[in-house]
Amino acid sequence: MYIQSATRAHQKGPLTFPPEARALITPYLPPSITITTTTTTTQSQTQQKPREYPHVTLTYAHSLDASLALAPGIRTVLSGPESKAMTHFLRAHHDAILVGAGTAVADDPGLNSRLLPDPDLEAAGERQRQRQRQPRPVVLDPKGRWAVHEGSKVVRIAREGKGLGPWVLVADNKGHGTGVVDEGRRRVVEEVGGRYIPLEARAEGERFEWVDVLGLLKREGLESVMIEGGGEVINSLLAPPGNGLVDSVIVTIAPTWLGQGGVVVSPPRTVGEDGQPGQPVRLTGVTWCPLGEDVVLCGRIPR
Amino acid sequence: MYIQSATRAHQKGPLTFPPEARALITPYLPPSITITTTTTTTQSQTQQKPREYPHVTLTYAHSLDASLALAPGIRTVLSGPESKAMTHFLRAHHDAILVGAGTAVADDPGLNSRLLPDPDLEAAGERQRQRQRQPRPVVLDPKGRWAVHEGSKVVRIAREGKGLGPWVLVADNKGHGTGVVDEGRRRVVEEVGGRYIPLEARAEGERFEWVDVLGLLKREGLESVMIEGGGEVINSLLAPPGNGLVDSVIVTIAPTWLGQGGVVVSPPRTVGEDGQPGQPVRLTGVTWCPLGEDVVLCGRIPR
Ligand SMILES: NC(=O)c1ccc[n+]([C@@H]2O[C@H](COP(=O)([O-])OP(=O)(O)OC[C@H]3O[C@@H](n4cnc5c(N)ncnc54)[C@H](OP(=O)(O)O)[C@@H]3O)[C@@H](O)[C@H]2O)c1
Ligand SMILES: NC(=O)c1ccc[n+]([C@@H]2O[C@H](COP(=O)([O-])OP(=O)(O)OC[C@H]3O[C@@H](n4cnc5c(N)ncnc54)[C@H](OP(=O)(O)O)[C@@H]3O)[C@@H](O)[C@H]2O)c1
Repeated sequence: MYIQSATRAHQKGPLTFPPEARALITPYLPPSITITTTTTTTQSQTQQKPREYPHVTLTYAHSLDASLALAPGIRTVLSGPESKAMTHFLRAHHDAILVGAGTAVADDPGLNSRLLPDPDLEAAGERQRQRQRQPRPVVLDPKGRWAVHEGSKVVRIAREGKGLGPWVLVADNKGHGTGVVDEGRRRVVEEVGGRYIPLEARAEGERFEWVDVLGLLKREGLESVMIEGGGEVINSLLAPPGNGLVDSVIVTIAPTWLGQGGVVVSPPRTVGEDGQPGQPVRLTGVTWCPLGEDVVLCGRIPR
Repeated sequence: MYIQSATRAHQKGPLTFPPEARALITPYLPPSITITTTTTTTQSQTQQKPREYPHVTLTYAHSLDASLALAPGIRTVLSGPESKAMTHFLRAHHDAILVGAGTAVADDPGLNSRLLPDPDLEAAGERQRQRQRQPRPVVLDPKGRWAVHEGSKVVRIAREGKGLGPWVLVADNKGHGTGVVDEGRRRVVEEVGGRYIPLEARAEGERFEWVDVLGLLKREGLESVMIEGGGEVINSLLAPPGNGLVDSVIVTIAPTWLGQGGVVVSPPRTVGEDGQPGQPVRLTGVTWCPLGEDVVLCGRIPR
């Protein structure tokens, strides 16, 4: 019934995601693409109500004291190799990966899926079942802070054919336009199949509304997005109204304390009518999945 | 291998602590009292090096954003009935329960063990194995802030024979003496078998050194202490030098966010010689134990 974490057993061999953990996490993934065959019309097909926005999975790793990193710009390894494999498994099951400008600037992230083929599935001749498509990297960069260049990891990966070119969402407001981006950066991004996409930043503090961001991705044909961070992006999606758009939450917790002063995940408080703190958000449909030294929490935000 | 949390199944029936969880948590408990029999001298006995301080178990429950409570004084139910049963199981296995003045003032805690007899063990005629002794409540109250009175929960419980009278550690410094406590309170405490105990508050901010607190408890014959909170007490025990005295850490995490502004568990940062954040403390010998909707983390702080 209960599990002792067993890191050493997992750490050997290739970085694949164990089938037991996979089975537990699958219910929280976006609905898989309906495969329609033309050979028969009697076949039952999954009927799904068309969605207004993509499936949103919020996923990140933090310490016991809810820190994503020691400080912005200090890349902090928190979770073990099993969690890393899970991240790449999740990435392979989403159409897009989204991060904020803070993460793009601080981390120079790769934002592709490096999932190794699962030896069990391969042995069973089921390689096709493992989705090989790469997710689209999406960066929220209203002010054009991310100085993407030839050497940026996401550009190098796209050039090598191991990932897609990034979509960078910039503010399209009067006085700014898309003039926030110089021609050199635009060329770098477009050469690897990416784009700068202007969007009205109509929320407070020159921010995009989440409905605008997700509506745009949906219109562009992306049916699912995995939102990875950082702190500001996650906190705004854990509070209303953003949290009404989140379908699944997958959090890895590592058994360490980064200490006061880190990049902390803790949503802003809502205040009830009596001036007291509002009802805290509690996940429903919760699964805890020990994975190496870490634990993975999967759940849903009740609407 | 992995577990789906199954709250409803657990919530029915008496509040006992399931044997599977018990088995996982037992390695983190204080060594059990050695039973010596006089009928035979050939029997092998557990040899234990005498300890300078009691076994210290640090245990508490917090939200995903590491909050113990919405605010000091707002009693916040975080964890489910299974975790509550675990707390009472743990209390039954320690000689003392320690809290800070902040918790005593804000929560009026009971600090006894209300563990129900385990029906399985009882059926097997093993009732004796369930330790029925109550732990000693210990409150760190250097300035005598805790206005204990006839109606305080700990006093009522002791009067009913369901718990022990509290030991209140007060500062014994020049200018203060034990004059911080009025005679009325002293009488209430002593009538239920408790004591006010003066101790030199020689750490910064009129605080006791943990070695002094634990040394005192050991000299008084207490071999194990479960430290339950609140925020300030826990944070000081997660940072050096306090953390060198902690034997086990047992943290319950509930799948909710209390939001910014709560009573947060996050130790003060240590700073390395280069001015950068010091190496974070990472637990060793980690076990994650899903329990109802919550997860329980057990581990040890490496010395
Ligand atoms: N452990 C993990 O799983 C994980 C994952 C990702 C990141 N991280 C860490 O997180 C840290 C970065 O976090 P952070 O909080 O500094 O930055 P962040 O959340 O990545 O980015 C914040 C920035 O993104 C832009 N942004 C966010 N929301 C927006 C919205 N609704 N509309 C328009 N723009 C928006 C804003 O850019 P402007 O200020 O330019 O307007 C904002 O300042 C890094 O240290 C990184 O390592 C950790
Ligand atoms: N969720 C849980 O598991 C849990 C458990 C316990 C408590 N709590 C919550 O925690 C909150 C209280 O936390 P808190 O941080 O305000 O208070 P706290 O840690 O309970 O108490 C802090 C006070 O205790 C005294 N103290 C602490 N360390 C000391 C030392 N080394 N030497 C001498 N005195 C010491 C000091 O009293 P003076 O200021 O008078 O010097 C200090 O202000 C409450 O809201 C409570 O509900 C939650």
